[in-house]
Amino acid sequence: MTGRIVCFGELLMRLTAPGREMLLQSPRLDVTFGGAEANVAVSLARFGWDAAVVSTLPDQGIGEACRGELRRHGIDTRGIQMRHGRMGLYFLTVGAMQRPSEIIYDRAGSAFAVTEAGAYDWPTLLKGAEWLHVGGITPAVSEEAEKAVVAAAEAAKAAGVKVSFDCNYRAKLWADRGGDAPAVFAKLASCADLMFGNERDIALILGADFHALPLSERFLAAAELAFKTWPGLKWLASTIRTHHDVDHQELTGRVAARDHRVHYSRTYKLNGIIDRIGGGDAFAAGLIHGLDKGWAADQAINFAAAAAALKHSVPGDANLVSVADVMSLVNEEGLDVKR
Amino acid sequence: MTGRIVCFGELLMRLTAPGREMLLQSPRLDVTFGGAEANVAVSLARFGWDAAVVSTLPDQGIGEACRGELRRHGIDTRGIQMRHGRMGLYFLTVGAMQRPSEIIYDRAGSAFAVTEAGAYDWPTLLKGAEWLHVGGITPAVSEEAEKAVVAAAEAAKAAGVKVSFDCNYRAKLWADRGGDAPAVFAKLASCADLMFGNERDIALILGADFHALPLSERFLAAAELAFKTWPGLKWLASTIRTHHDVDHQELTGRVAARDHRVHYSRTYKLNGIIDRIGGGDAFAAGLIHGLDKGWAADQAINFAAAAAALKHSVPGDANLVSVADVMSLVNEEGLDVKR
Amino acid sequence: MTGRIVCFGELLMRLTAPGREMLLQSPRLDVTFGGAEANVAVSLARFGWDAAVVSTLPDQGIGEACRGELRRHGIDTRGIQMRHGRMGLYFLTVGAMQRPSEIIYDRAGSAFAVTEAGAYDWPTLLKGAEWLHVGGITPAVSEEAEKAVVAAAEAAKAAGVKVSFDCNYRAKLWADRGGDAPAVFAKLASCADLMFGNERDIALILGADFHALPLSERFLAAAELAFKTWPGLKWLASTIRTHHDVDHQELTGRVAARDHRVHYSRTYKLNGIIDRIGGGDAFAAGLIHGLDKGWAADQAINFAAAAAALKHSVPGDANLVSVADVMSLVNEEGLDVKR
Amino acid sequence: MTGRIVCFGELLMRLTAPGREMLLQSPRLDVTFGGAEANVAVSLARFGWDAAVVSTLPDQGIGEACRGELRRHGIDTRGIQMRHGRMGLYFLTVGAMQRPSEIIYDRAGSAFAVTEAGAYDWPTLLKGAEWLHVGGITPAVSEEAEKAVVAAAEAAKAAGVKVSFDCNYRAKLWADRGGDAPAVFAKLASCADLMFGNERDIALILGADFHALPLSERFLAAAELAFKTWPGLKWLASTIRTHHDVDHQELTGRVAARDHRVHYSRTYKLNGIIDRIGGGDAFAAGLIHGLDKGWAADQAINFAAAAAALKHSVPGDANLVSVADVMSLVNEEGLDVKR
Amino acid sequence: MTGRIVCFGELLMRLTAPGREMLLQSPRLDVTFGGAEANVAVSLARFGWDAAVVSTLPDQGIGEACRGELRRHGIDTRGIQMRHGRMGLYFLTVGAMQRPSEIIYDRAGSAFAVTEAGAYDWPTLLKGAEWLHVGGITPAVSEEAEKAVVAAAEAAKAAGVKVSFDCNYRAKLWADRGGDAPAVFAKLASCADLMFGNERDIALILGADFHALPLSERFLAAAELAFKTWPGLKWLASTIRTHHDVDHQELTGRVAARDHRVHYSRTYKLNGIIDRIGGGDAFAAGLIHGLDKGWAADQAINFAAAAAALKHSVPGDANLVSVADVMSLVNEEGLDVKR
Amino acid sequence: MTGRIVCFGELLMRLTAPGREMLLQSPRLDVTFGGAEANVAVSLARFGWDAAVVSTLPDQGIGEACRGELRRHGIDTRGIQMRHGRMGLYFLTVGAMQRPSEIIYDRAGSAFAVTEAGAYDWPTLLKGAEWLHVGGITPAVSEEAEKAVVAAAEAAKAAGVKVSFDCNYRAKLWADRGGDAPAVFAKLASCADLMFGNERDIALILGADFHALPLSERFLAAAELAFKTWPGLKWLASTIRTHHDVDHQELTGRVAARDHRVHYSRTYKLNGIIDRIGGGDAFAAGLIHGLDKGWAADQAINFAAAAAALKHSVPGDANLVSVADVMSLVNEEGLDVKR
Repeated sequence: MTGRIVCFGELLMRLTAPGREMLLQSPRLDVTFGGAEANVAVSLARFGWDAAVVSTLPDQGIGEACRGELRRHGIDTRGIQMRHGRMGLYFLTVGAMQRPSEIIYDRAGSAFAVTEAGAYDWPTLLKGAEWLHVGGITPAVSEEAEKAVVAAAEAAKAAGVKVSFDCNYRAKLWADRGGDAPAVFAKLASCADLMFGNERDIALILGADFHALPLSERFLAAAELAFKTWPGLKWLASTIRTHHDVDHQELTGRVAARDHRVHYSRTYKLNGIIDRIGGGDAFAAGLIHGLDKGWAADQAINFAAAAAALKHSVPGDANLVSVADVMSLVNEEGLDVKR
Repeated sequence: MTGRIVCFGELLMRLTAPGREMLLQSPRLDVTFGGAEANVAVSLARFGWDAAVVSTLPDQGIGEACRGELRRHGIDTRGIQMRHGRMGLYFLTVGAMQRPSEIIYDRAGSAFAVTEAGAYDWPTLLKGAEWLHVGGITPAVSEEAEKAVVAAAEAAKAAGVKVSFDCNYRAKLWADRGGDAPAVFAKLASCADLMFGNERDIALILGADFHALPLSERFLAAAELAFKTWPGLKWLASTIRTHHDVDHQELTGRVAARDHRVHYSRTYKLNGIIDRIGGGDAFAAGLIHGLDKGWAADQAINFAAAAAALKHSVPGDANLVSVADVMSLVNEEGLDVKR
Repeated sequence: MTGRIVCFGELLMRLTAPGREMLLQSPRLDVTFGGAEANVAVSLARFGWDAAVVSTLPDQGIGEACRGELRRHGIDTRGIQMRHGRMGLYFLTVGAMQRPSEIIYDRAGSAFAVTEAGAYDWPTLLKGAEWLHVGGITPAVSEEAEKAVVAAAEAAKAAGVKVSFDCNYRAKLWADRGGDAPAVFAKLASCADLMFGNERDIALILGADFHALPLSERFLAAAELAFKTWPGLKWLASTIRTHHDVDHQELTGRVAARDHRVHYSRTYKLNGIIDRIGGGDAFAAGLIHGLDKGWAADQAINFAAAAAALKHSVPGDANLVSVADVMSLVNEEGLDVKR
Repeated sequence: MTGRIVCFGELLMRLTAPGREMLLQSPRLDVTFGGAEANVAVSLARFGWDAAVVSTLPDQGIGEACRGELRRHGIDTRGIQMRHGRMGLYFLTVGAMQRPSEIIYDRAGSAFAVTEAGAYDWPTLLKGAEWLHVGGITPAVSEEAEKAVVAAAEAAKAAGVKVSFDCNYRAKLWADRGGDAPAVFAKLASCADLMFGNERDIALILGADFHALPLSERFLAAAELAFKTWPGLKWLASTIRTHHDVDHQELTGRVAARDHRVHYSRTYKLNGIIDRIGGGDAFAAGLIHGLDKGWAADQAINFAAAAAALKHSVPGDANLVSVADVMSLVNEEGLDVKR
Repeated sequence: MTGRIVCFGELLMRLTAPGREMLLQSPRLDVTFGGAEANVAVSLARFGWDAAVVSTLPDQGIGEACRGELRRHGIDTRGIQMRHGRMGLYFLTVGAMQRPSEIIYDRAGSAFAVTEAGAYDWPTLLKGAEWLHVGGITPAVSEEAEKAVVAAAEAAKAAGVKVSFDCNYRAKLWADRGGDAPAVFAKLASCADLMFGNERDIALILGADFHALPLSERFLAAAELAFKTWPGLKWLASTIRTHHDVDHQELTGRVAARDHRVHYSRTYKLNGIIDRIGGGDAFAAGLIHGLDKGWAADQAINFAAAAAALKHSVPGDANLVSVADVMSLVNEEGLDVKR
Repeated sequence: MTGRIVCFGELLMRLTAPGREMLLQSPRLDVTFGGAEANVAVSLARFGWDAAVVSTLPDQGIGEACRGELRRHGIDTRGIQMRHGRMGLYFLTVGAMQRPSEIIYDRAGSAFAVTEAGAYDWPTLLKGAEWLHVGGITPAVSEEAEKAVVAAAEAAKAAGVKVSFDCNYRAKLWADRGGDAPAVFAKLASCADLMFGNERDIALILGADFHALPLSERFLAAAELAFKTWPGLKWLASTIRTHHDVDHQELTGRVAARDHRVHYSRTYKLNGIIDRIGGGDAFAAGLIHGLDKGWAADQAINFAAAAAALKHSVPGDANLVSVADVMSLVNEEGLDVKR
């Protein structure tokens, strides 16, 4: 076991059309469970962390199955409340070639969304934790969820628990909800040690505009502004993704630190992608792992990008590979059958 | 083609655990579409009727798949509106032996539930129809749905379209919604030519109590009261179901007519049930078919019960057998392989 | 290895709707291969015989797969010709409860049907054989197939090879083809040592009528007439099947020998039938095995009926159980899990 | 709804080995329905057209399932006759890498093939239609089918219905049937407004030879000859397909108009093809749609090629994407997950 | 949470032929994990207990999957050691009708079997436990396993932890291993508060012979002898199972207490069994639960038998039902669909 | 039929996680049978050879299924002994992208491994054979297997049967077993006409070191040394494989003959690999076929490499393509759908 991390956010049941079929082309859906923060928790549990998920699930068979699935990966689920209500769902049609994947969300009014912010006792839930991981989807879910996530981040900061915050800005959810995303994100960023976002996220939060700069300088400029604005922030990180088509992409990680530099990872060719969902969460888990180990930014970002690349080869939302698997890719230990 | 029937009600996507597995024991759900009134429509379409479904579906992939599934059976879907919103769902764990089947409903706030009553133009929708079929689940869904179904029944009665009304009383849904079920059911019954319900339904609607009577006399007493109360009502019908276990049951149909008699069907042994959902809807379709043909009550009720029995051998919500299949059972034409 | 048997007849690809679904309710068909005579061969190969199939298959992937499937069971397939043409098919919808199974045949113009009778070199094909097994479906397929099967039986009789003939009368196929079934059956019966058929078959072939007799005496009367007509015939056998419903039946075997008696097997309750197809072929294989072993008629018929009963528990057309499995049932060695 | 199109041709059941397995490597076949002209109809129905299929199907479960499948896509199937007979089949083994896909046809003697030409009442069937789509496979099926398709085209021309004709020359089918393909194709071309074919097709029909020309000039030369020969013809179109391997190809569309130019589409890289069958039909539907909209040839051919490219990402014979999906590719709106 | 129970024994991967197919009839095996003692733990965890499994698993993907599966059910797996080695396996062909299920064991040399007895630190492992559950398969596995299970029982007795011992006598395993089953069983029985076994088990252990007694008196006689021999023993329990065929059985529970009586449960008809494996383990869990609750023997045995009956409706080795599910059957709360 | 080849080695059951899932991510394993030497036999049987497998299998359902699978491909299995014991297994997780495939072996103590060398009567088993094919995995399995394979090779050499020997050096198995691989390989090489191995294999066997040479010269140097050492050896062959990622590789074949040259095949791009297992065995079968036909080395190596390339498109261990399929690739006959 490395450290203890607490991940807070909504859990979703994903219902996926089999193979590369159109939705309901054949009368069957494959089921996995996910949620951005839970994905980070699963990946870190696989990396040997003591990972806990804090959330609310419906107290029926679907909620129980979701909780069981987290437990299967060794996640501590004692911080999950089982309450009357429904499970948030999303339907995924996996694209192919030039046909993009499509998600239909059906998460309104979930047990998580309607749980009052006060239901989470953060001092207790954060006891013993080294990290708290939260994201920008949570406040987009409901006003109560917004209050809860801000309370979590503030409690962590107060308790000396490091905070990782993934912007994960979803315009559509915010449009539906009607909240003030920049204000909330600013609150969360002000508690964060590590933030996942790019220049568009920083621009959104701080009302800045980096378009005057050359493309290659924007991320550093955004990071510098972020570091100036939020004195506690140590790292700003994001991935760069190039699409040749749905199944063929390229992925690079980058992290800016307070050394006024952007550290880039190796670029991975993603040819014949198996499952693109959760790539960003795998990247987040990888970077948290590397930084927690005290690795240099260059080393940490290479680990994070390799983890993210490997996620694309794993069905489901979560990155099920081990530290050894990631290191094998980082160290180029070969791709032939391991016997 | 026999006559034209219009069936109005909510459509649901059913997500079923495969085989006799517990919910999400393996990570897959089988999908079918149903809804009490649509099940009646599909069965009658298979019997050669010109059957139309009037409803509201979400204007995304799931709603389109549902509409396509109705079309596949030859249903006229021009009366289905595609609107922004979500699909009503239910999750089914099929029981076995002494373990009952379980349903988790997730239908609140569906596109159908939130559609305003005025969205349905009944005079147009009922044009050319001989029958309208409605049920007691619809008013339990929402206040607007209640208004819509009452408007439908009243428009039909006004236009000389025969009305079939299946009580389908669901205490839980009514408890959630908080409406006045007896009052609504009375309105619908007052428009009905044919009503599906038993003595408990009549007792609920009319505030009567038949417990003082011997069990065998209650249904006739309830029917007599119903006929007295609602002068337009010609038939009151229901099934009697005995459970040996989840997979082994017995089913008998009965219909009371204005001849002061209850007509009983043959009793079918249901051994090794394949799919119990929709048995009542298959019975309703069978009786509507028989009565529409002008058959004597004894003949019609035998057809209806045989149709209901056969439904238990068909996977999914709807009864996919033909008139010839039902007649083959009624006439005991043999059970060996048909080559 | 016990003896060598040659089985001649058409091979068919069976395309079955999965589970108890209606045909094409979901977009998939399960494939097995069968054919009455090949089913006998597979069962006898499992019983340790040196079993050969003589037939004609199309020289493409489907024919090769069928030949491979026979080989898998240890069948000698050197007598199968691969010729240009199509494979005979049948589509099976497995019934349930009161819904009978249905077969759609699509076998017209198959490679087997169009092969000329002279293509089979019987003296060579029968070399070393103790038994030839043929059936009444073959002559119903085409005129050339009729000539071929008669030639086979006559060659066997001439060579001292015992002949087993299963009437398998299919009125529909004969109606399509237009041949003279009684005449052909009489030719085959005149070559047979063992014949599978009941009083209706004998009546058809010999123009007799046993209805004046009590039901219980008809089979013996038919057998006596058969023995008188065909001096080489030693046994006439058939099964008696009672249907409670599609999944619940009872099965008894009977064989008449030249001792003027009918020998009845124990009656097996078939509850929860897995696959009814091939029950008669399993019975035939069982009886051939028992008689070949020189067992008394009572012992042989019990073995045959037990084999036929077990077939109903095996998916596919062929009876995949061993002699030990059958003896375990005959000897009532227990039904609990064998560890 | 855009316009009304009538598509005439044979419907086939496709039985596909699952995944990339060899035929019957595992005992299962996946079923879809197709047929070149029906594929065009389904694609246009998805594009919002009022599309009708005229054909003949067997009056049993397979034929009914095929009709239901068309209905599911919103196709008008009233022009389909249900007659005694068999369904045309084809078995598909999907290739991979350097192993080509293989089709085994089993369509001889189908209900469609044996239906007499006079069974189709074209004036009635074409009522209200703006387009008729026919193809060169139909006359290759049987003499009666040839007569029927010629009658259809002539009736359309007479009635002022635009005719689209896809050569779809299949040497093997013509060799089996023994008809005069060039003569029939010439008749159909003389009725056509839009023709799908390349220089080899024109050479075949008109006995011309374009090999003396540079490769890049042959198509225009063929088109000029076609326009000269058939005064009613406005467009000649085809795709150019390059194979890197079975799963990696490139596709370009081209259409020649009476402006003496060939209009080329963008070239699409098809990497990781899901299903190659029906690519040409998707192209045809796309071009009919674009031309019917009155788009310029450059715009129409780009739409058609994008539609054809997208088809390769959709399992089954038919292109299930919408106009919006195609426009998204044409306009390069991005390939990331649509949420 | 009720109490804490520690279950010690080997974990096995079960590979099951799908449906009712013969082994490898189609090229696929369904995987579940089990093991007699783990099955008890899973059932009790579902009943709300704090259940722990102590065992040894191989430190590769299969062992990890097994551990994950236990965790999914909320089992405490900290007492499971991950060591180099192989996983014990068994292949299950599920029977049907008169064809018994068959198990092929492949468990020799498993990581569990080769782990030295001293590797388990019982005082630590039993800390906080109220019950220890062990069984007679464990000592049959290897000499080290025998030592380990005896050490566990003795440590529990010494620490005041109640001991449940299920004889589970497997003649074949003992014959392979060559140990002295009666001696080991006697040691375990001398530590036990609750013992699962029948008169044959007691006869085996104590060298007694109850055949002189009428069948109905043997179990009580055996229990009396057991109580006399082992002063700490409070209950002797077993099930009585009648086989109509593989799918149709009857089950009754019985428990003898020190009140000189045998308490019988209601008899459950098991018609249409889904999965017979683990029925005895479900019974054991049910009885431990009832006795731990302090229920009277009659009440406890009815709960245990109902639990065992329900297990037959659940796929896999473990009983996944809740206390409420069992009570619903005990209280006959009805078998219709729970909505 | 071309010639007769006898292939000797262990047969293994492969249990594969479905699709690209992680091991046991869903509760199912797909089953195929393989084994290096059996794979060669299957491929040659598909090429028209009379191929026999000599091995030992367990005398239970799994062993029988394996034998049946070989028979299905037309393999002569009379040289396979059925003995009490277990089947060797391996679990395969198919990788994707940058995640390598992983194999967990579970083959210790198999029926093959424990069979005494004397159980194989080589003079009888080799009767009529032109080739014997053996490999380096066999002696790594057990001491008895080592003795058996050496005896086989020596018997073949003595009888004038050509010997093909594939080094297939598996360091891990040898480390477990503890034998002297170089010594055994030298014995087998001294009997061989054709040997599969590269410079590392030759270096291992003969204690040589080729690192001083440029990479491009090492194979020829190794071959020259091999030819000098083993006067009977005529060919040394191997493949060169480049990994872009798990699914995208390149493959070239090379063979050195006694003409002091290395003959290279065309290089095949393997994009979108379906199944990488058995590529080397397919290469071996291809080369044996080509050399047996008397083709020039350049022609033979091209055939072998094309066969190996095609194997990557076929699910399972064995290469199921025909000679015509391979020639179609060698001759570049096109990649479009074969109709």
